[in-house]
Amino acid sequence: MKRNPLPSPRKRATNFSARPTIKDIAERCGVHPSTVSRALSPAMRHLVADDVAQRVQRIANALGYRLNTAAQGLRTGRSGLIGVLAPDIADPGFPPILSGIAEQLEAAGYATIVVDVGANGSQQELIDRLIARGVDGLVLATVGLRDGIVKHCLDAALPVVLVNRVDAGARLPSAASDDETGMRLAVDHLVGLGHRRIAHVAGPANVSTGARRRAGFEASAKQLGLTADGIMVETAAAYTREAGRAAALRLLDRKARPSAVVAANDLLALGVYDALAARGLKCPQDISVVGHNDMPFVDMVSPPLTTVRIAQCQMGEAAARLLLDRIASPAAKREHVVLAPSLIVRGSTSGPAQR
Amino acid sequence: MKRNPLPSPRKRATNFSARPTIKDIAERCGVHPSTVSRALSPAMRHLVADDVAQRVQRIANALGYRLNTAAQGLRTGRSGLIGVLAPDIADPGFPPILSGIAEQLEAAGYATIVVDVGANGSQQELIDRLIARGVDGLVLATVGLRDGIVKHCLDAALPVVLVNRVDAGARLPSAASDDETGMRLAVDHLVGLGHRRIAHVAGPANVSTGARRRAGFEASAKQLGLTADGIMVETAAAYTREAGRAAALRLLDRKARPSAVVAANDLLALGVYDALAARGLKCPQDISVVGHNDMPFVDMVSPPLTTVRIAQCQMGEAAARLLLDRIASPAAKREHVVLAPSLIVRGSTSGPAQR
Repeated sequence: MKRNPLPSPRKRATNFSARPTIKDIAERCGVHPSTVSRALSPAMRHLVADDVAQRVQRIANALGYRLNTAAQGLRTGRSGLIGVLAPDIADPGFPPILSGIAEQLEAAGYATIVVDVGANGSQQELIDRLIARGVDGLVLATVGLRDGIVKHCLDAALPVVLVNRVDAGARLPSAASDDETGMRLAVDHLVGLGHRRIAHVAGPANVSTGARRRAGFEASAKQLGLTADGIMVETAAAYTREAGRAAALRLLDRKARPSAVVAANDLLALGVYDALAARGLKCPQDISVVGHNDMPFVDMVSPPLTTVRIAQCQMGEAAARLLLDRIASPAAKREHVVLAPSLIVRGSTSGPAQR
Repeated sequence: MKRNPLPSPRKRATNFSARPTIKDIAERCGVHPSTVSRALSPAMRHLVADDVAQRVQRIANALGYRLNTAAQGLRTGRSGLIGVLAPDIADPGFPPILSGIAEQLEAAGYATIVVDVGANGSQQELIDRLIARGVDGLVLATVGLRDGIVKHCLDAALPVVLVNRVDAGARLPSAASDDETGMRLAVDHLVGLGHRRIAHVAGPANVSTGARRRAGFEASAKQLGLTADGIMVETAAAYTREAGRAAALRLLDRKARPSAVVAANDLLALGVYDALAARGLKCPQDISVVGHNDMPFVDMVSPPLTTVRIAQCQMGEAAARLLLDRIASPAAKREHVVLAPSLIVRGSTSGPAQR
């Protein structure tokens, strides 16, 4: 059988060295080789005058020079790649955050690579693979409140920031929404409509959004005068529509049913819709529902979902800026950016049914 | 200011060499170092007997050995990373395809990294960066019909496959849905309901799904006996809800309006919903709408969307298998897997209004 094996890395390196080099371009341009390096590096181009950078690029193109990012990485310690760890790439709430991250990083010359950790994935193994391939930094949307991965990242001395999550010790810089305030907006709205029996479908307790939104719900409900038996909580096993459905069914099958449900995110809220349909109940006539995040398309579901909008794009931008700060200055002060949420009222909430 | 700069790559290498080596582990296990390499490599573990692999892993853990994937890559030519280029990570139709890819690859010991090319991104630059960092292969969900990137990938001699797309010359292996048959199912359904004036909101003509679905629509409509003025087409500038809205408004503002619209994908169909709302028209009473893909959540929109379901997960799995075949044997026959679609009838289609 005819086989056409891939060149080994050693062979590739030989091929590269037969191509025009930085030195060749520098001679043709009449500049120092380090100027050529900077002009051809997305992360350093801003250090070179525009006209020089353009001339270098033109001559590099004319000579057929191809950027060997791997070799460049070995010289500058930069690969131009930033890794983003996502908890679940099928959650439509994540792309708007990712857009904010990617746009900021792209403007600074970095490409963003996304890894979906998934339910059974090993964060640590993935992070080690990315570090080994020379990523310049990581944005984690995955860590739990008390996650060994935080220490692992600190030990690795790589710039790392959290987005939409915080760790219990606040040891890593983070950009996240004010989860307590978000829940306050939701409960305020429902109490204002006359609801006195309000349930919370909580997210997993081991991640900050799950724990903080639940704490925010309970504190707001008490402050607004709900009695203990008017405050109900069921925790979902994961941030999925299916887990939201299961948790909501447990609520609906209680003897004294709530008149409104606040879900810890929009996927869980869609699961609550599924549970209501399964029990023949109507939203909002029988039970009002509030989500969290305002992910894409919840304006189009039936009924359109009332939800707490988090500042997804700005959150991503803030996380990217925190990361760029740490890349520029690894000992920079550890910052925590907290973004204000807002309530978007749509068709899934109304006054409680008269019973 | 106290600064704690990142170790340079050279320094890192020194650090690694001070750690326990493959040779140390081999001596403790009483096996050849190459056996240790294989046992610790996700891509090669299957070459070692289970009990040996477990013993090696146990002793490696006990010695605190940390896999240096970069160095390993230089020896084996494998990084354990596969790059997936996505056209738009905010399109909820993509994650189910990605899940199929990632699950198959993970079972074979590879981690999947996703790059969102975006509207203005340079595929070629991203691909070069990934190649430079040593990815073992690429899955492209991005290429256009006549895309220079295809030749670039063939020249790079890296295993590359296409998913949900084909190139005009069929020069790269691919896994895609049967787009013509999908459109036939949609048009058949509408003609069966009595529609005689059917419009198509086409996807961009420079990608295979756009071109093939349009061709399938026009062929089916003719075969089923629609007259020339009963067949209307407007092309959307991109696969987005906004572009779908704009194209649908152009259709609705024609003198002779269609009674049904077949969109080239579900995002475009949601844009058709927006256009109908903007013109005060009801779906399906005034105009029926059919989507394509059956992306998540279109069962929850109002009205629930009738759509052509493509075999997303199987498509991803097939693409991953094609890629693994090429990694194992780069000269393997170039295969094109075509998956059969099916029609999912929901609430957005009914007979035409009596006028």
